[in-house]
Amino acid sequence: MGTADRPTPPPAATPRPRPRLATPITVALVLLPLALLLGVLRLGSALYEAPAAAVSAAAGHTGGALPRLLLALPVVLLACRAGAALCRRIGQPPVVGEIAVGVLLGPTLLGAVCPQAQSWLFPAQLAPCTDILGQLGLLSFMFLVGLELDLKALRGSGRTAVAVSQAGMVVPLLCGALLALGMYPSLAPDGVAYLPFALFLAVSMSITAFPVLARILADKGLTGTRLGTLALACAAVDDVTAWCLLALVVAVGQSGSPLDALWTALLTVGFAALMLTVVRPLLARLAARAARRGAPRGPGVLIALFAGLCLAALVTDRIGVHAVFGAFLFGVVTPRGSIEVERAAERLHSVAVPLLLPLFFVHTGLRADFGVLGADASAWLWCGAVLAAAVLGKWGGSTAAARLSGQGPRDALSLGALMNCRGVTELVVINIGLDLGLIGPELFTMLVLMALATTAMTAPAVSALLRRRGGDGHDGHGAERLPDPELRTPVGV
Amino acid sequence: MGTADRPTPPPAATPRPRPRLATPITVALVLLPLALLLGVLRLGSALYEAPAAAVSAAAGHTGGALPRLLLALPVVLLACRAGAALCRRIGQPPVVGEIAVGVLLGPTLLGAVCPQAQSWLFPAQLAPCTDILGQLGLLSFMFLVGLELDLKALRGSGRTAVAVSQAGMVVPLLCGALLALGMYPSLAPDGVAYLPFALFLAVSMSITAFPVLARILADKGLTGTRLGTLALACAAVDDVTAWCLLALVVAVGQSGSPLDALWTALLTVGFAALMLTVVRPLLARLAARAARRGAPRGPGVLIALFAGLCLAALVTDRIGVHAVFGAFLFGVVTPRGSIEVERAAERLHSVAVPLLLPLFFVHTGLRADFGVLGADASAWLWCGAVLAAAVLGKWGGSTAAARLSGQGPRDALSLGALMNCRGVTELVVINIGLDLGLIGPELFTMLVLMALATTAMTAPAVSALLRRRGGDGHDGHGAERLPDPELRTPVGV
Repeated sequence: MGTADRPTPPPAATPRPRPRLATPITVALVLLPLALLLGVLRLGSALYEAPAAAVSAAAGHTGGALPRLLLALPVVLLACRAGAALCRRIGQPPVVGEIAVGVLLGPTLLGAVCPQAQSWLFPAQLAPCTDILGQLGLLSFMFLVGLELDLKALRGSGRTAVAVSQAGMVVPLLCGALLALGMYPSLAPDGVAYLPFALFLAVSMSITAFPVLARILADKGLTGTRLGTLALACAAVDDVTAWCLLALVVAVGQSGSPLDALWTALLTVGFAALMLTVVRPLLARLAARAARRGAPRGPGVLIALFAGLCLAALVTDRIGVHAVFGAFLFGVVTPRGSIEVERAAERLHSVAVPLLLPLFFVHTGLRADFGVLGADASAWLWCGAVLAAAVLGKWGGSTAAARLSGQGPRDALSLGALMNCRGVTELVVINIGLDLGLIGPELFTMLVLMALATTAMTAPAVSALLRRRGGDGHDGHGAERLPDPELRTPVGV
Repeated sequence: MGTADRPTPPPAATPRPRPRLATPITVALVLLPLALLLGVLRLGSALYEAPAAAVSAAAGHTGGALPRLLLALPVVLLACRAGAALCRRIGQPPVVGEIAVGVLLGPTLLGAVCPQAQSWLFPAQLAPCTDILGQLGLLSFMFLVGLELDLKALRGSGRTAVAVSQAGMVVPLLCGALLALGMYPSLAPDGVAYLPFALFLAVSMSITAFPVLARILADKGLTGTRLGTLALACAAVDDVTAWCLLALVVAVGQSGSPLDALWTALLTVGFAALMLTVVRPLLARLAARAARRGAPRGPGVLIALFAGLCLAALVTDRIGVHAVFGAFLFGVVTPRGSIEVERAAERLHSVAVPLLLPLFFVHTGLRADFGVLGADASAWLWCGAVLAAAVLGKWGGSTAAARLSGQGPRDALSLGALMNCRGVTELVVINIGLDLGLIGPELFTMLVLMALATTAMTAPAVSALLRRRGGDGHDGHGAERLPDPELRTPVGV
């Protein structure tokens, strides 16, 4: 059992060259140049005996807005996420939680309980940044709403939808104008004429939130039913009408003379016509050609869509109606059906909206202060009046219109309840009103509360109506599925 | 053929209720409230005979940074996209085109040819916004680089990789320090001591861009080969080492006293240790629990990851090393393998990076001005010296180290050529140097040129070496595929 028994080393079966590296070589390889390096550094230090002054210019540079944003962004995102999760658990659409969190992070709760925390979390220097980020999220969102708005889906129930929606908008417009008649002396900002104030309030009463509605319908399993399809079609018509009315209001509110307003309105109509008649076929042809050449790899389509929505938003902003109108319009004219466009939209939807839109809710929440209403009984009365006018006008008006156009009573009531959902669209509208100075912070707060309340009441109301309908069997085929719903996944929120 | 022949109306076969809506009813339904509305508006206008003043406060509000951004963003995105497409066509990685476009949009070309266009496109008021957006893109990118850095992939060729990479870093460090010895009197900003200046220049010479490298390897079909795997492993070790060195340089450069620098270094090491030993297992456990409960719907994981990378970036920023270090570190400790994490990373990669990172390139390009070098012959000499030191140090050093550790001559040369690729990582480093005031705009420009040149020379050099190798057959198994490459899709760029 001597040296002879020692097993021979196995032959290197693999042709892979083993690294000949020995530890001493590594050490030498690293240490030698390292020693040289230290020598050179020492030599240089000796040569240029500069005072070892701190690079004082540095401290201010890496400071600034970035660290503030790196704190505020996660706080906002996580808080909104928590609010959304809570709402989903209690059967509410997540957007209710996100709007509520935005309000709670503002002067209403955080600012009232701990003003230092609020000004530390959202310092004034940060506002331009978060506002811009929120606006980019909002523009992406509005683009997706426009893209979602498949005008073809209107064909089936087009006439009824247009009738219900238009009639269902005129009643809340009337309610808003009546409300403005009473409110104007006490709640209109100084220097605002009655006409823009009343027009704005009227439009803000008549809003339906298309995306939140789609979400609620999906949650209730109504997507593709007759009621669901009709509601979506009505909401789509509502959306288009509301944006056109808003464009008009902004034109009236922003330009001094009626001539200017007319000019703005003309430009807007011209731009919309250009988008629909020239840009839409052009984009469709481009998309068809791209599809023939094979799907392009990489983020090209996403970049093209994002650039397009920015440019369209820029045009409408320059015209004098709001940037969101352009983004929405670009969504409407973007050709559907291509896988690449679907994928780019899905990506925008799954990244830009969840990461950026919460900043818009916070932007809104920071401007709303329920503390202002707190002391004043008449303010709360007005707040109640706003809510009542909104609910009666939209729910009542839509129900009446639906009933007159031949829907059963329960279906008409359900349709009215769905149309009463205001969601993000309402927030966009009232932020524009505040930006334009058409309403003051007090009325803004009331309208935020109204938006929150009408959005939150939709899902329970529809649930209750559907449950009762199951019993009386009056219109049982309301939940019958259409053969080809032609409905895409809702934009969500 | 009288009335008797008139066909009877077909019985309503479908139970679907036909809308009873007649056109007159619709008209009445819409017109009556509309008339009322107009009446109310007229009444209100008569009651509150306010002067029809323009809402003058409005004009300034919707203005501001948003329209500027809506113009600059599409221009930047489309220009960078065009540059990237052009580069892909000539066999270059797209990032070369994006960096070049950033430089061309800056004072180098656009600012020199048409300064009005440049200041119109990128006004000073817009800079904070675009910088923040670019930084968010960069942080997302660095997070993805960290996530890409699968430390497990090192196991196969770990020792060789560490040896080649460490030795291949020390030589360029030495070259940088030598260069600084000559440059310090003429090119160092006033008040900067030799040590931080030299350290910074040394680090900037030793960078390898992991993501661009992965992209080039994929383009050349080298991913999964022995050469490709070794190159990626070396680049990964390089990346970690470079970020640690940079953290040290920033600590030395930013804090006045050596004690402060030591403190910063200690905090950094402590934070990195905390992330690796506490946060990493914690996240892994959270991910495992989430996987057991079923994949969560919606953007929850994406939001969690984004919030995490922001917070980690905030911590390293506050410690005094740069925010990118934290984002990178958070990427390293994020648990891999979960489908949800992969999807969130893919989304961040396909949206945040292409839409935001180009702004970082423009941010870099706006700070580099080749016109400054134009007149001065000695500046161009220094520029050549920087390029020579960078190429000789990194390519030469890595080749020597690879040769010594047992690679064949061609493989060693190819590996050196790959390690010489600097890409985005170099831009991050030199921007930090400029922010800290460690280098001036002149040296910054030279380093941008060096980064661009070394990135652009990688792909052709590797192609040429591989072509020749095919002929002499010395090391033909270099392109042999490993059984399990364990390589994920490259981060791209």
